[in-house]
Amino acid sequence: MGADALRELTERNDVPGMQAWLAEHPPHVIADELARQDAVTAVLLFRLLDKDRALAVFEELDPPDQQNVLSGLRDQAFRDVVEEMDPDDRARLLGEAPAKFAQRVLAGLSAKERAMTAALLGYPQGAVGRYMSPETVLLRRTATVEQALARVRARGADAETVYTLPVVDDQRRLAGVVALRDLVLADPDRPVSDLVDPEVPRVQATDEAEAAARLMQDANLIDLPVVDSEDRVVGILTIDDAIEIISEADTEDIARQSATTPWPGHYMSVSVAQLARSRVVWLLLLIVAATLTVNVLQVFEGELHQVTALALFIPLLVGTGGNAGAQAATAAVRALAVGEVRTGDVLRVAWRECRVGLLLGTMLAVVALAIGSLLVGVDIAITVAVSLVVICAWAAMIGSTMPLLARKLGIDPAVISAPLVTTLVDATGLIIYFLTARVVLGL
Amino acid sequence: MGADALRELTERNDVPGMQAWLAEHPPHVIADELARQDAVTAVLLFRLLDKDRALAVFEELDPPDQQNVLSGLRDQAFRDVVEEMDPDDRARLLGEAPAKFAQRVLAGLSAKERAMTAALLGYPQGAVGRYMSPETVLLRRTATVEQALARVRARGADAETVYTLPVVDDQRRLAGVVALRDLVLADPDRPVSDLVDPEVPRVQATDEAEAAARLMQDANLIDLPVVDSEDRVVGILTIDDAIEIISEADTEDIARQSATTPWPGHYMSVSVAQLARSRVVWLLLLIVAATLTVNVLQVFEGELHQVTALALFIPLLVGTGGNAGAQAATAAVRALAVGEVRTGDVLRVAWRECRVGLLLGTMLAVVALAIGSLLVGVDIAITVAVSLVVICAWAAMIGSTMPLLARKLGIDPAVISAPLVTTLVDATGLIIYFLTARVVLGL
Repeated sequence: MGADALRELTERNDVPGMQAWLAEHPPHVIADELARQDAVTAVLLFRLLDKDRALAVFEELDPPDQQNVLSGLRDQAFRDVVEEMDPDDRARLLGEAPAKFAQRVLAGLSAKERAMTAALLGYPQGAVGRYMSPETVLLRRTATVEQALARVRARGADAETVYTLPVVDDQRRLAGVVALRDLVLADPDRPVSDLVDPEVPRVQATDEAEAAARLMQDANLIDLPVVDSEDRVVGILTIDDAIEIISEADTEDIARQSATTPWPGHYMSVSVAQLARSRVVWLLLLIVAATLTVNVLQVFEGELHQVTALALFIPLLVGTGGNAGAQAATAAVRALAVGEVRTGDVLRVAWRECRVGLLLGTMLAVVALAIGSLLVGVDIAITVAVSLVVICAWAAMIGSTMPLLARKLGIDPAVISAPLVTTLVDATGLIIYFLTARVVLGL
Repeated sequence: MGADALRELTERNDVPGMQAWLAEHPPHVIADELARQDAVTAVLLFRLLDKDRALAVFEELDPPDQQNVLSGLRDQAFRDVVEEMDPDDRARLLGEAPAKFAQRVLAGLSAKERAMTAALLGYPQGAVGRYMSPETVLLRRTATVEQALARVRARGADAETVYTLPVVDDQRRLAGVVALRDLVLADPDRPVSDLVDPEVPRVQATDEAEAAARLMQDANLIDLPVVDSEDRVVGILTIDDAIEIISEADTEDIARQSATTPWPGHYMSVSVAQLARSRVVWLLLLIVAATLTVNVLQVFEGELHQVTALALFIPLLVGTGGNAGAQAATAAVRALAVGEVRTGDVLRVAWRECRVGLLLGTMLAVVALAIGSLLVGVDIAITVAVSLVVICAWAAMIGSTMPLLARKLGIDPAVISAPLVTTLVDATGLIIYFLTARVVLGL
């Protein structure tokens, strides 16, 4: 593999070998490898790149890795890289960096680039404004196709995209967009107004970036015009940034789903302490919540002492309830994220999942009845089977509705993680189990 | 909300109201609403759309919903929709549909469209060939920029994209690509060969679609040329299809992560039975695996009977072990999916996660010691605390390395779900707990 070859080269400190490896691989592969190296090796490799390739690789790095690489560069190289970055990438880097580092970056910039960056940094974290590209080519609807193409040629070199061209009125207010494709295919004498799509979606720079990115995905757009509160064009969101936004949001959602706080950067380059920190808060909360199960069992300690065999099925029951709840919660969180479910659906979802849970519980009960009868006898097997049906229905309902209720309360539904649902279902599941035992076994 | 308004209209069967609603909303919103309706209402709404909008809405539907809508159309309308679909969308629809339906679709097509669809269907499920667009505009490297633009104008109307133009030799072999942007900005007399990017990535039509889509994401491409085994261009993969591929893959991974088989279609429109079917297989497997915990507890029934208080901490211990394992497994599966970790990293990952687990376990042990001492006394509290440290380290190691080992064995790492890890850690966690109890309590 190319990757293992690089590791050998860096361990032997074989500079010509590293240079050869760098020359052979495209920028995104090099960026990927840099992210996997320790800080010193990453800077060493980066400094071996010639200027153009260095910029291309730098663009592909995540902000924490960009910061690390930049910190290892001398002043001139530092300024060169920073000046060439796209304003949106620069804003993203500075948004996450310490103040001292940000000052060094801003000090190295030309006045024009500094002004653009400052404007983007004026938008809140997570807003479209932080991700959009402020350099756009604007067209007038009174222009002809030929004039419009001439304008694209004159102004297009600096813009991040020219494939979607916002059309504006005298006050720079968005009237619609024209696709470069349509301009190229149209008769040069036609007016641009013939080609304008006035129905095109738009977002405000202060809108949430994730919602804007998902809109682009739903509506199959490669660029999305961004306006201010008076509908004036202030930038454009490109599909590569939208994909990045969605991917990061999904990675965060997935992390939260396992009761982990999202961590910055690459899995292989974050420290053990950072990984532990991203997980410990929830684990601590959950272990405190799990104390509830200890309390519940203390209440039923008499029954437990009378029929020790009841204890044998505790892990199986709470495990299965947790699994059923986790399945429902995961389905609901994802359906919310991709827009298939809305908070108004909470009753429909609860009723659907209750039936799903009853169906699942019944099938599992049959299996449990067989296993239980073989291992400990029919009485306890019946207790376990009945409990399974109730626990599964309960777990599916709780698991599916909690994310919807969280969204309604303005909390990120992804924090309703599988472990959280599991822990909550554990205590209630035990109550269901011992109450069933009292009835079935006549305790 | 617009959505609730539509529900009221369909319940009152208010056709003019529905028409007004449809006229006011963009195609992707209408498609989203259709997917949430029952089959009959969806068809009713679809038939209210005029022809152009109907096609735009149809393109935004998922294959199961497309099949449902088509089944409700009369022959002429059916043929119109099917003939206008992009070949790749048609191939995807037919790939999932029953044979009888597929025959009806193919019979309604013109010879040219039928041939193109058949070609795409020749590629295996999940291959790039199923998603690519076969209609491309190919350029010769000997052409001038002006000639190239003339060719784009002549051939571009049928192509799905003209923003990335493959450049080929006499044998249709890919020499590189030219961006339409560069053509538009360049001097008309320059040869195309000056603008060709020869280093551009390419994929084969038989390659895995998900890998191709992630490559586009990594390398920030809006189109990716697709070649056959002899490097001849056979199509192009566009970014909107790539996003769809990634989103579907992520939805499937997330479902698998909660021990659910991915189900086809929209969460709100699949039946209760389908949802139950997607979850029952794993629940059954896991409950059988959980029988192991019953067996383990039977082995230690003597200790349990002697010190019933040991039973009180079983749910807390197995719950925490399960959570720690789920966190590590989820992180590893995601890192594998986005390419941050490779199978060769298994030992490094195991060592990292072992240390993370020890760190986490130690912090939790302090809390458990406090809680345990208050509730039941110091002896059992010490047993619980020591067990937590060992269980957390063990769970993190198992949880993180199993996905990597699965990938090595050619199994989808996402099947190493949080519930699977939890269930496996449960039984081993109990052994650790009771062995610790024997030592600490001198049983």
